[in-house]
Amino acid sequence: MASKIAPLSGFPELLPADRAVERQVVETLSRTFELHGFANIETRVVEPLDRLAKGGEIDKEIYVLRRLQAGDEDGDSGLGLHFDLTVPFARYVLEHAGHLEFPFRRFQIQPAWRGERPQEGRYRQFTQADVDIVGKDVLPFHHDVEVMRVMVDALDALPIPPVSFQFNNRKLIQGFYRGLGLPDVTTAIRTIDKLDKLPAEQVAALLVSDAGATPEQAQRCLELATIRVADTSFVDRVRALGVEDELLDEGLVELAAVVEGCSAGDHRHVSVEANLRIARGLDYYTGTVVEIFMEGYERLKSVGGGGRYDALATDGRSTYPGVGVSFGVSRSLIPLLADGVLAGSRPVPSAVLVAVADEETRAQSTAVATALRARGIPCEVAASAQKFGKQIRYAERRGIPYVWFPGEAHEVKDIRSGDQVAADPADWTPPIEDLRPQVLVKETEK
Amino acid sequence: MASKIAPLSGFPELLPADRAVERQVVETLSRTFELHGFANIETRVVEPLDRLAKGGEIDKEIYVLRRLQAGDEDGDSGLGLHFDLTVPFARYVLEHAGHLEFPFRRFQIQPAWRGERPQEGRYRQFTQADVDIVGKDVLPFHHDVEVMRVMVDALDALPIPPVSFQFNNRKLIQGFYRGLGLPDVTTAIRTIDKLDKLPAEQVAALLVSDAGATPEQAQRCLELATIRVADTSFVDRVRALGVEDELLDEGLVELAAVVEGCSAGDHRHVSVEANLRIARGLDYYTGTVVEIFMEGYERLKSVGGGGRYDALATDGRSTYPGVGVSFGVSRSLIPLLADGVLAGSRPVPSAVLVAVADEETRAQSTAVATALRARGIPCEVAASAQKFGKQIRYAERRGIPYVWFPGEAHEVKDIRSGDQVAADPADWTPPIEDLRPQVLVKETEK
Repeated sequence: MASKIAPLSGFPELLPADRAVERQVVETLSRTFELHGFANIETRVVEPLDRLAKGGEIDKEIYVLRRLQAGDEDGDSGLGLHFDLTVPFARYVLEHAGHLEFPFRRFQIQPAWRGERPQEGRYRQFTQADVDIVGKDVLPFHHDVEVMRVMVDALDALPIPPVSFQFNNRKLIQGFYRGLGLPDVTTAIRTIDKLDKLPAEQVAALLVSDAGATPEQAQRCLELATIRVADTSFVDRVRALGVEDELLDEGLVELAAVVEGCSAGDHRHVSVEANLRIARGLDYYTGTVVEIFMEGYERLKSVGGGGRYDALATDGRSTYPGVGVSFGVSRSLIPLLADGVLAGSRPVPSAVLVAVADEETRAQSTAVATALRARGIPCEVAASAQKFGKQIRYAERRGIPYVWFPGEAHEVKDIRSGDQVAADPADWTPPIEDLRPQVLVKETEK
Repeated sequence: MASKIAPLSGFPELLPADRAVERQVVETLSRTFELHGFANIETRVVEPLDRLAKGGEIDKEIYVLRRLQAGDEDGDSGLGLHFDLTVPFARYVLEHAGHLEFPFRRFQIQPAWRGERPQEGRYRQFTQADVDIVGKDVLPFHHDVEVMRVMVDALDALPIPPVSFQFNNRKLIQGFYRGLGLPDVTTAIRTIDKLDKLPAEQVAALLVSDAGATPEQAQRCLELATIRVADTSFVDRVRALGVEDELLDEGLVELAAVVEGCSAGDHRHVSVEANLRIARGLDYYTGTVVEIFMEGYERLKSVGGGGRYDALATDGRSTYPGVGVSFGVSRSLIPLLADGVLAGSRPVPSAVLVAVADEETRAQSTAVATALRARGIPCEVAASAQKFGKQIRYAERRGIPYVWFPGEAHEVKDIRSGDQVAADPADWTPPIEDLRPQVLVKETEK
């Protein structure tokens, strides 16, 4: 194959050192999810087109699969690449319901695909990490707190800039609007969702013209939407607006429980807020909603989000309510890596390069490597028996911290400090931080 | 979404307990590869069609991507899903050569797709694990031994039935045929490759009719192909056939080094053989070749294979020789799971279910779970405050071994033995084998 290679726009690929960072992020997420009892699943990447179509409407950005050179009659497979992990999860639950125990806790970390125009944080292939809890017919509210708390703990363990979980509750909004006497609650929610794009007066005007609100009602809607606090004091502030509604009461209790449950304990860099203008446009949310933002990367909009849906799936006999939250692994990591905020300390797993004095003694060097590996120390043997100075530079270029010189008396050199000491392949161990590539974090300016 | 769900043929999906097995297999492979200094990469799943086409010929089984409802002019993306991990790796090396250090050791564990007819061990979506070492312009032979040895160590660490690595060397075959005076070495190799499908006499006849061999030459080819030994005694047996050729000599030395290097040390269930009828049809192999078979699963044909290729890729200025080997994760695991040879011990990561006495004390149960998780013990809190007997059965159905009863005096019950003891959330720890799901291996009859 000889031809010029150009990168494919929207399909980012990582060099090995950056990939080491991504792997550690995925590993940390997985470990936290598993500590909370979430089982991993992996779904096939394709779904039938009618399943990818939401409510009969097929989005333009789906990639459809066709078998090359197959006749017209069977070329079109009727399959498309999934564009998120929720649609395949819903299908998985329905298909395998008889073999699953409910409530079913699962996490899934896989790529998804959208044919949309690429931009920073938006790719045609991107990896997401989703956690969901799904029940059969019923799913108690406390699982909302549980699943959100898992993601709080998971992101708190990552080497990323501070993130903010901004919670709201659809019952709270709907109940408030209903109690207020708004004629068209759905349109009002969609209109308020534009507050991050349009000035408040314009949104107020739209509430009047499109959602049938009176100017006073519109004003109350804006007052509700400006409430944003890091504790449960929003309850009193909403009450002070004087709207009475049962659904509103329920929403207030739920939101307070989520904010309290997610704030409890010490977090390194996750903050939790009630932000009453978060609505999430999607129709299927019915209670808790959340959007996640990353400090210094507000231009990416949210790096994650999710919420409660009363019908993730239904098969006619049973309905499967769920609650879940998704984190955009590619969306957040690729800009962080591109900006140098995160970097891998080296592009190879090797902590040690075992030098080779001459090709005749390569077996001796291999034996040293075998002894080190048996004790969990990643290493490689030098590719050729060059002068030791060249072998040290070979290690340097790869960021390998130690070079081992086999012999009657073995020695190992820390090539960063230049220190060289006698060592035994049967018991020498590097400091734990040198064992595998580290994630280097550049302090960002405030 | 309400509709009947049927599984998609050729796109196998695992239930959580089986997925736990697959995850542990992938983790073990990765750990071994990293101990040997191989860096992980992940390539995008799509390649331009002209790159997927080998030598201008496009295979029928490729899935092509089209953006749904895009106009004709830009609907066809010109992209297809990769059908192996070698083509994307070659492209990755060319695209990123300026940022890689050579020799470049990489492993890659990803799905690939082929639109072919599904059967046992052959799927439309399947996961492979590839290790390769690629050089820039040169790659010393000792890397052949290195990369094969890595895969031997990796498969030896897996909980699968015994596997056999069967090695040969294309230089040995070509040199032998050339020394024998065969007029058409390439056709002869392809013909010998049919020995596993056709009887020997028929292959001999084809060597005469298609490859222009004399009956005596055909006989010698068959004699070579029947040599199969677990040590380096093949060298003398080949010599005894009386053929002289420089390339043959080189092949004999290389094959002996690979067999010796891969046999050294103790292996649990990997055996190594020189099998001189292994040819591997693919044109690009130029030295070492290997096929891997799994005991009791000979019907799957090989579960892995690979070899040396002098030009993995070329960009006009440089050529990138490589050597690598691939293991079919789906091809081997899915039949093993279907047959019950392997099974996961439980479908959830949780080692402990923390019981809930009543909803008012749920926070106390959550606090116990938090304390256990802080010490790396996966657990979940009971979904509802049912009678304890019901909560124990809830744990039983999920294979969770321990149920924790919070209180002034905490107690924990091993529900397998029924033993219940006082315990402190701050220091109780289950035996290590209960910490995560185990891979259960059914002894297969011989």
